[in-house]
Amino acid sequence: MTGSRHNQRSVLSAAIAVFSQRGYDAATMDDIADFAGLSRPALYHHAPSKQELLRLALEPLLSALESIRLQQQAPHGPAITRLEAVVHQMIKILTAQAPCVTLLLHLRGNTDVERAAVSRRGAIDNQLAELVSEAWNENSIRSEVEPFTAARLLIGMINSTADGYRPSNGPTPQHMADEILRLALHGMRSSH
Amino acid sequence: MTGSRHNQRSVLSAAIAVFSQRGYDAATMDDIADFAGLSRPALYHHAPSKQELLRLALEPLLSALESIRLQQQAPHGPAITRLEAVVHQMIKILTAQAPCVTLLLHLRGNTDVERAAVSRRGAIDNQLAELVSEAWNENSIRSEVEPFTAARLLIGMINSTADGYRPSNGPTPQHMADEILRLALHGMRSSH
Repeated sequence: MTGSRHNQRSVLSAAIAVFSQRGYDAATMDDIADFAGLSRPALYHHAPSKQELLRLALEPLLSALESIRLQQQAPHGPAITRLEAVVHQMIKILTAQAPCVTLLLHLRGNTDVERAAVSRRGAIDNQLAELVSEAWNENSIRSEVEPFTAARLLIGMINSTADGYRPSNGPTPQHMADEILRLALHGMRSSH
Repeated sequence: MTGSRHNQRSVLSAAIAVFSQRGYDAATMDDIADFAGLSRPALYHHAPSKQELLRLALEPLLSALESIRLQQQAPHGPAITRLEAVVHQMIKILTAQAPCVTLLLHLRGNTDVERAAVSRRGAIDNQLAELVSEAWNENSIRSEVEPFTAARLLIGMINSTADGYRPSNGPTPQHMADEILRLALHGMRSSH
């Protein structure tokens, strides 16, 4: 990796930290330059605006989530099995980039970059909802369950595990995905 | 209702709207005065600071959630039944005050008022976790389920239904509570 790429990474880490701490709307380019230990011109060399920093910061998370869809383009096996695989992949990606997830979930959509990110996130959620519908059509999901509502609740659980997640503190991503699937698929009620 | 109480309510609605739109950190007293159509002195008559406006805005939501606990102080019936009742009450309160829920969930904890609100919210979540543990101890929850993790996921679902909820758009609170409980207790997997 070149020195300049390394710098780009540090700048984006600084931007994510400042956005998380102050909120995207309140954060300024000066705050980010201070946090990164850079002069203003040096920061502007990396990105011409706060919006562009946000776009660059969210790109790896959104691209990684979208890559799950590409992997699913030649589906094989029952939808319920593919759904389980997608939940595992999502949790892995979301926990690995937890600060970005919090940032993404808290965006208010006041700028074009925010709206574009929220819209891409919506498309990813819709993909999960389609998979739940497919599993419902294959009779893997009980007929009285509403696929769209169930998908929305599943997404709520998935997001909640990544929002504020710290790698050192708590269960592994694999374990969390197992627990979410256990609850969503089988419920917690004992049968007696 | 007196005119001054009516004004207090309008001021708090304006504060919630501005906090939601701009983010608590970025919002200013000037923004709120403008939104409410008040002069700055008139706004300061209602609250001496942005922190105090936040405190007043969150108080009804937090008090309502805490009142569920009081109702549970003389428990009768199995914990799983009380858990179902608490989920219904929580969803009812959270959807009725959805903009406040979004505000509460997005707080960053940079001020004393924010930290106090986040801590009260944590205590409410812990109460739900205790009820799940109690139900687990009563064997109403399958032994392989981890009560703490299950409670955390349940809270994730509950919060996600209220975050961004608009009364005109989507299922009723009663229906959402039913769907959450159906998923959390029985899962969506068909048995064959």
